[in-house]
Amino acid sequence: MRAIVLDEKVDIVHGRPTPTPAPGEVLVRVIRAGVCETDLQLIKGYMGFRGVLGHEFVGVAESGPLAGRRVVGEINCACWTCETCRMGLPTHCPNRTVLGILNHDGAFADHIAVPQRNLHAVPDTLSDDVAVFTEPVAAAFQIPVQLTIGKKDRIAILGDGRLGNLCAQVLARLSDQVLAIGKHQEKLAILGAMGISTAVLSDAIEARSFDTVIDCTGSESGLPTALRLVRPRGTVVLKTTVAGEQKLAWAPFVIDEITLVGSRCGPFDKAIAALERGHVQVEALISDRFDLSHGVDALARAQTKGILKVLLDVS
Amino acid sequence: MRAIVLDEKVDIVHGRPTPTPAPGEVLVRVIRAGVCETDLQLIKGYMGFRGVLGHEFVGVAESGPLAGRRVVGEINCACWTCETCRMGLPTHCPNRTVLGILNHDGAFADHIAVPQRNLHAVPDTLSDDVAVFTEPVAAAFQIPVQLTIGKKDRIAILGDGRLGNLCAQVLARLSDQVLAIGKHQEKLAILGAMGISTAVLSDAIEARSFDTVIDCTGSESGLPTALRLVRPRGTVVLKTTVAGEQKLAWAPFVIDEITLVGSRCGPFDKAIAALERGHVQVEALISDRFDLSHGVDALARAQTKGILKVLLDVS
Repeated sequence: MRAIVLDEKVDIVHGRPTPTPAPGEVLVRVIRAGVCETDLQLIKGYMGFRGVLGHEFVGVAESGPLAGRRVVGEINCACWTCETCRMGLPTHCPNRTVLGILNHDGAFADHIAVPQRNLHAVPDTLSDDVAVFTEPVAAAFQIPVQLTIGKKDRIAILGDGRLGNLCAQVLARLSDQVLAIGKHQEKLAILGAMGISTAVLSDAIEARSFDTVIDCTGSESGLPTALRLVRPRGTVVLKTTVAGEQKLAWAPFVIDEITLVGSRCGPFDKAIAALERGHVQVEALISDRFDLSHGVDALARAQTKGILKVLLDVS
Repeated sequence: MRAIVLDEKVDIVHGRPTPTPAPGEVLVRVIRAGVCETDLQLIKGYMGFRGVLGHEFVGVAESGPLAGRRVVGEINCACWTCETCRMGLPTHCPNRTVLGILNHDGAFADHIAVPQRNLHAVPDTLSDDVAVFTEPVAAAFQIPVQLTIGKKDRIAILGDGRLGNLCAQVLARLSDQVLAIGKHQEKLAILGAMGISTAVLSDAIEARSFDTVIDCTGSESGLPTALRLVRPRGTVVLKTTVAGEQKLAWAPFVIDEITLVGSRCGPFDKAIAALERGHVQVEALISDRFDLSHGVDALARAQTKGILKVLLDVS
């Protein structure tokens, strides 16, 4: 099969063997895949990953109870037997592999092997282009899993990229006071067209005025900015990672009694339901699409200024 | 009056004018005061404070509804009119002064002026030596104000100093699985004698095995150690501050979905009740005592290895 493989560098490989599903796994024929910021970080060396990239996908299950149906797949492959799994935290299983991120080949390929229990059927009403957003939309829905959000909560979303956009949409249905803050007027306009308030990052935004600030910048400057905007005893949610070590004064966390919440993968069922009802709209985020055979170009394109989501057409 | 004043350096001043209470303030004749890590940090330049040091004290109110009675005093002097105060967060009032820490003379003196509403009467059953611990015990009680603590929660306290000891005592009444971790066998022994489990910091303590880790180290190494010990989706409480900027990888907060909670001043009523009932025992923490006139020596003594609480006898 064809696959976009990260080794010394990223390359398209023709004739890579179709993965052999491990016990409990199902082979999925990939239809469409999405490029995520994490893919770009992996190429830069994050996690030291080697193998087939890609963890956002929609495909057709080739065996198991969902055989012949369109599916999306949760990315954490847990052991389900360790203490962490038994505590109900399979996404934190210390023995886990992660599709396209950690010791498990990913979805930028004609086929991917996925644990059966990770699969969710895709409703017929969802197009492939929409269904492929399930994983990042689920990540946005992890925020209300972790925090209680009230209608009057003043929430700032930092970052107008792919994930910031989705987080703003999810939170704008829970609070009347969401402000999406970014650096790119044209990206913010997508949210503006949905009736979500937006602002270009500047010092004019009142410091210490938000109950909750969500950092989706993927940048070292995100957390310091969040700490400037959050009110005393407010909450900062770290939604994106930055490689390496960062410099920061910790004392303000104590002095202002700030809570910092790290947030990662989220509930697929909520994401699928929101996409089906049109509560989260993703079509406007699609900037470009490439055939899998041109996946290397797709990855380069995703790093271009002004680009939001790049999709791969696989079959 | 006599006062320990921080200016270019710390000195005893004789003949400093007795403070004139501002509207709403009461003059308190100080009986006893305690040296806190924050005092030592202020001397090193933290907060840029200039004036009379000291914020842990017990004294006698000289006017107001508690005139003639022994009192302790909350340290944050709020404006009670700004938005933050009206939100119910007076300890975070942006216009606040703080006794002996920020724009308000402190308690290492014969007299201190304190807002009437900050004062709490001290029960007759509490000795001066015990009552002077109200402020740091209240700080320890801020942790269960911010977090729900369950009987089976695995809690590690990092740091066997003054505040670590008090936090361990407070939390050991809420959870059966508290472990106090420090570097000094003789300091840990005080907690051990109360039936609280203790351990000397070493790699033998299982990583990622605590639901909650409280950093009371006052050291740059505290937070990295806490992150090593806390389980995925666990909570780290930052209880002590460190001056300057620190280096740390932020990505683990996201990957392991860790919550970081900054924690500062706490409820005096709970502290007084706990001291009265003997739920928190403080006498064993008193390492030394000095007359106010020798307050400079007391501050030097408090920085000595192996020393816990140093008290000042004022009247």
